[in-house]
Amino acid sequence: MKDERLARAALTRLTEPGDVRVVDALLQVGAVRLYDDVLAHRAADRLADDAAGRLPGLDPEAELQQAADLGIRFVIPGDLEWPTQLDDLAHSESVSELAGVPIGLWVKGPLRLDSLVDSVAVVGSRSSTTYGEDIARRLGAGVARAGRCLVSGAAYGIDQAAHRGALAADGRSVAVLACGVDRAYPAAHRSLLDHLATTGAVVSELPVGCAPLRLRFLSRNRIIAALSSGTVVVEAALRSGALHTAGWAASLSRPLMGVPGPVGSAQSQGVHHWIRKGAASLVTGPHDVLELVGGAGQYLQEEPRGPVLPRDSLNRRHRHVLEAVPLRRCAGLDSIAATAGIALLEAQTALGYLARHDFVVRAEDGWRLGPRATADLPGA
Amino acid sequence: MKDERLARAALTRLTEPGDVRVVDALLQVGAVRLYDDVLAHRAADRLADDAAGRLPGLDPEAELQQAADLGIRFVIPGDLEWPTQLDDLAHSESVSELAGVPIGLWVKGPLRLDSLVDSVAVVGSRSSTTYGEDIARRLGAGVARAGRCLVSGAAYGIDQAAHRGALAADGRSVAVLACGVDRAYPAAHRSLLDHLATTGAVVSELPVGCAPLRLRFLSRNRIIAALSSGTVVVEAALRSGALHTAGWAASLSRPLMGVPGPVGSAQSQGVHHWIRKGAASLVTGPHDVLELVGGAGQYLQEEPRGPVLPRDSLNRRHRHVLEAVPLRRCAGLDSIAATAGIALLEAQTALGYLARHDFVVRAEDGWRLGPRATADLPGA
Repeated sequence: MKDERLARAALTRLTEPGDVRVVDALLQVGAVRLYDDVLAHRAADRLADDAAGRLPGLDPEAELQQAADLGIRFVIPGDLEWPTQLDDLAHSESVSELAGVPIGLWVKGPLRLDSLVDSVAVVGSRSSTTYGEDIARRLGAGVARAGRCLVSGAAYGIDQAAHRGALAADGRSVAVLACGVDRAYPAAHRSLLDHLATTGAVVSELPVGCAPLRLRFLSRNRIIAALSSGTVVVEAALRSGALHTAGWAASLSRPLMGVPGPVGSAQSQGVHHWIRKGAASLVTGPHDVLELVGGAGQYLQEEPRGPVLPRDSLNRRHRHVLEAVPLRRCAGLDSIAATAGIALLEAQTALGYLARHDFVVRAEDGWRLGPRATADLPGA
Repeated sequence: MKDERLARAALTRLTEPGDVRVVDALLQVGAVRLYDDVLAHRAADRLADDAAGRLPGLDPEAELQQAADLGIRFVIPGDLEWPTQLDDLAHSESVSELAGVPIGLWVKGPLRLDSLVDSVAVVGSRSSTTYGEDIARRLGAGVARAGRCLVSGAAYGIDQAAHRGALAADGRSVAVLACGVDRAYPAAHRSLLDHLATTGAVVSELPVGCAPLRLRFLSRNRIIAALSSGTVVVEAALRSGALHTAGWAASLSRPLMGVPGPVGSAQSQGVHHWIRKGAASLVTGPHDVLELVGGAGQYLQEEPRGPVLPRDSLNRRHRHVLEAVPLRRCAGLDSIAATAGIALLEAQTALGYLARHDFVVRAEDGWRLGPRATADLPGA
């Protein structure tokens, strides 16, 4: 197991996350043999060539020790802490030519990754609106209050707002980075990341010191989707990276949710498109999300209903009669019956019932509306 | 046919629209016989009793003449002008205990009802927001520009905005009322209704003079849904009558669409709920609507895409190399190759390609980013 861990640590340094050649080789020959092959320049598919530039100075044993000194551990498949939901990546379709279970995860923070099985990912645009940030905060808080962990990136905008919502609700939160967990990207999120590393966890496939290259965000996105039991996209323009994370959730057949917004907002365009094509479910708040990621019936919410009006308790015929009573003046029985299209005797009985229940009041020359007859005018 | 028309005109006066007893009786004995039965107090299911109060003074022949004098015609099944799409109501499930093909339609305006087969209904809250009204106007205009007729009610808010949008685009528009077409409800929409009656049509199941009772809005809603090829709900709180119209569209298996809005807006709650439960498709503008109600492929729109960036044209390996070039300084070939995880020779060839396409520039001590390498930072 020590060789396995060393080999995997070295491979996270030598290769790029999500490289399908590495995934295939790991399946075929295992980590120890693959590492040996790279060292001996025997690895196929040009893997050895590509890794060659990273061999000088490589020392996985020292690297693991240095990481440990920084409070960073390296979690690999087979460890008790390994979040086995990541193994679903072995069977999911590739997205952007990336795929596969990570070689291992570099982790900083007290939260054990195997506790993330019911976590919820909240992702979205960096260039978010205050509307989106407000929702992300509410979702983060709602997820936290349900006792679930929040998973996101560490970008400006939605990621940040979601973390802050979870932290404000004393919840646990995990940031998955596209660079080493010792680095703060963006730099302005140094204290947020420090806080997450103290109370939750900061996670990456990339070893200490690695830079946040663009393509690493794409492979990082699959970790966010695969760690969590469902992904919510709060705001995303048509080219937003958040939609890439959404693609991974869909590829993993995990619940994918989107928060709608004003149709004129470019930041909601991507979300609307995914809801429209049926790939994402529309959610409006934490309750919707928890219902969709919850166990069967665990968070089933009541069908939302508008206010119940007094007249809702009346049967159809009584309502017909009630509506035939004019709004602002009295009417006689004959007139009411004719307007309602209800037989005279039945209309009379109905008016008696309606009077006993304060919907109508008997007047000198007929009937008029009573206190329980709401004054709201009919209409669509 | 004259007897049939007289009988039907009388029956629209004697009974309430959508009454399932009338619908059944019409199917079983026809309009002429049913009218006779009501006159002779022989009609079953208490129909004769209910109609009794409306018999005094009944004179359908005079009524048709008076209507004609007001420019109002009475269109019945079998007429060339009859909009046969209404016949689908014979097979749709009842909603709110109402059902059935209308007995006939009282119509004012030059627009022939048989031209409404590809019309689009736009409905929504009376208590709309400026957001909703703006969208309703855009939808009305978009439907009109596509050469289709708009169908709605005549209420404040969304109905009004949709009509105004269609009229502003020189389109045709139809209002379906819950009262006689000679009446203006609400009174403030007198001039709107007059304009529609001059350029389009105002339609009702109810004969001249009938008042807009609450339950008549419910039966009216089925005409809106059944006349049009699809229904769009722009804004609707949870108890909005617009959702009742939506129920008819669903019952008729016609395309039902909803426009999303801010999740905090009560006026969007009903729409979000219908989209969420999968009953309505999310639409963001006229193009989405036309695609859903159009004939196969008639309005198929391109998959919406974000802006295409220069680097999109690069293959994966070239992008790896490009991203390994630092943002603000030069780097040597060795460093770039190691960062990219790409073999040295291939990285060199790639840098040559990238230089020829202005993504990188050769410098004294290596390479730096060129003019086509966008400065946008990586991130989610």
